[in-house]
Amino acid sequence: MSDRVLTGDRPTGPLHLGHFVGSLQSRVELQSTVEQFVMIADAQALTDNFKTPEKVRESVFEVACDYLAVGLDPSKTTIFIQSQIPALFELTVYFLNLVTINRLKHNPTVKLEITQKQFGEGVPAGFMCYPVSQAADITAFRANLVPVGEDQKPMIEQTNEIVRTFNRIYDTNVLIPAKAVIPKIARLPGIDGQAKMSKSLGNGIYLGEETDSLFKKVKKMYTDPDHIRVEDPGKIEGNTVFSYLDAFGTDHEKIQELKDHYQRGGLGDMVVKKYLMEVLEAFISPIRKKRALYKQDPAQVFSILEEGTAKANECASETLKLVKDVMQINYTVSMYT
Amino acid sequence: MSDRVLTGDRPTGPLHLGHFVGSLQSRVELQSTVEQFVMIADAQALTDNFKTPEKVRESVFEVACDYLAVGLDPSKTTIFIQSQIPALFELTVYFLNLVTINRLKHNPTVKLEITQKQFGEGVPAGFMCYPVSQAADITAFRANLVPVGEDQKPMIEQTNEIVRTFNRIYDTNVLIPAKAVIPKIARLPGIDGQAKMSKSLGNGIYLGEETDSLFKKVKKMYTDPDHIRVEDPGKIEGNTVFSYLDAFGTDHEKIQELKDHYQRGGLGDMVVKKYLMEVLEAFISPIRKKRALYKQDPAQVFSILEEGTAKANECASETLKLVKDVMQINYTVSMYT
Repeated sequence: MSDRVLTGDRPTGPLHLGHFVGSLQSRVELQSTVEQFVMIADAQALTDNFKTPEKVRESVFEVACDYLAVGLDPSKTTIFIQSQIPALFELTVYFLNLVTINRLKHNPTVKLEITQKQFGEGVPAGFMCYPVSQAADITAFRANLVPVGEDQKPMIEQTNEIVRTFNRIYDTNVLIPAKAVIPKIARLPGIDGQAKMSKSLGNGIYLGEETDSLFKKVKKMYTDPDHIRVEDPGKIEGNTVFSYLDAFGTDHEKIQELKDHYQRGGLGDMVVKKYLMEVLEAFISPIRKKRALYKQDPAQVFSILEEGTAKANECASETLKLVKDVMQINYTVSMYT
Repeated sequence: MSDRVLTGDRPTGPLHLGHFVGSLQSRVELQSTVEQFVMIADAQALTDNFKTPEKVRESVFEVACDYLAVGLDPSKTTIFIQSQIPALFELTVYFLNLVTINRLKHNPTVKLEITQKQFGEGVPAGFMCYPVSQAADITAFRANLVPVGEDQKPMIEQTNEIVRTFNRIYDTNVLIPAKAVIPKIARLPGIDGQAKMSKSLGNGIYLGEETDSLFKKVKKMYTDPDHIRVEDPGKIEGNTVFSYLDAFGTDHEKIQELKDHYQRGGLGDMVVKKYLMEVLEAFISPIRKKRALYKQDPAQVFSILEEGTAKANECASETLKLVKDVMQINYTVSMYT
């Protein structure tokens, strides 16, 4: 069996440079060598955004534009919308029988998120059960590789538990276990130096960021707080500006020189930031242009999503048929004669 | 709006006289005056029978034969199979967002069943969430009347909570609240005198029961344990034989005479039982015959189920479309232009 990847994003806003470093980049590389399904997970986004569906709806389009702008190629990568694949919902409901509530409660990822989201005693059942819906997503597309962050590994374990339970109970091998693929690249920090770039923290640079606001964001970027006078030596570690140069710069020699100079002292933050502005503008500019073209042409984006969704539906329906066959609930007259 | 009823059974075995008294009888009456959907709830049956799907599969056909044999008329009542209606699964997953896990845990019906089924700490998520799937069933068919036992009332309350939450969040009235209709007729006891006739207790008389085994079951039926000698006075209350005569006898004068005689003393249990055999044989015999004809003709039964399922699918898909419209996840190009 050749490798197949399932990956995707919750559409809760446009994607940022953190997404590029963490996943988009490797998806663009992967699409040439493996079969890849990329899901815009709107149904999953609704588990904690069900009161603001308009945000999810708008983001579906934004995320699709981001995908296309960074180079996901619809002829190589199947881009689709989760809520438009009925088989995923059927699989989710059947898989719910194979997991205990206690097991879901002790899922470390869910546990952490419940704390972060301050649900308290009011955890929605849909949120508690979303690892089961992820298991449906992964198995529906018979993906054997799922690129996830280290913190998402328990989700893949949960999926594989369901796969094993299902295959054991129904004495089959129709469901395929998946492997978590942890990206080598470290996470890109937010412009404030926080470990994670996130929309809610307001510390992100978006793939479609305009030059003006891009420069403003770089200007206020977190550096070395102890580097007060230009002549002082500065620190590279934890210095967001250098992290970004490492991630997006192409002239490695020049970056090394800047680092050495900064550490020796005598190099002002603004000089490095000016260079980062150039580097990021060079990186973002073509993406921004492509993105704007897609945004002006919703019909094209829409038809790409429709084609991808049709292909995804075909694949997921096939899996559902296999699942219902072994569960003996694809009824035919011949069963009773 | 005219009344619409949703009702149904979990297919975990053929139906018995308890089902007839508790629900089938009133469904046969109702079908002439209201629009009625009767669901063979195989997906729900799987929440606690997922390890024995063959039992569920066989029972789907048995239950369909029972329905037709007692007089459910496919031209008046839509009989359908739950697992064949994808919209129900989609609605279930979206509704899961509107209920907290804590709320589900405190549902009295679920609480009781969890104890009865001795799940302990291992309650499957699917079982815990089945009230949400019931809410999907009821609302999908826009049913305003749901005939349930007194013990199932909390399920309807749960449904209506979901209806209110959904309609409030999405500022709509696409979902319709339902009213529980509690049957007037008391529950038929099992032949052992237990309050409930149930397959697992082995104390039921089935709608297709053969004469031989029917007579055997009546012979060992629970009466008045203190009525030892024929000449002793006997008790009517809690005497299963008389409960059955009340439920199925047509010669009320004769039954009253037997009751009086039994209470005075001088009437043996076997005499009353012999009469009950006659009464039940007269009741079951035509049902048994019709049932046997249907069982011999799976193609006919199957085509009735297919037609009903198609009609049910049409109705449920319509509701799902309305639901997804207000959730803004029926994507169209025009949303983005």
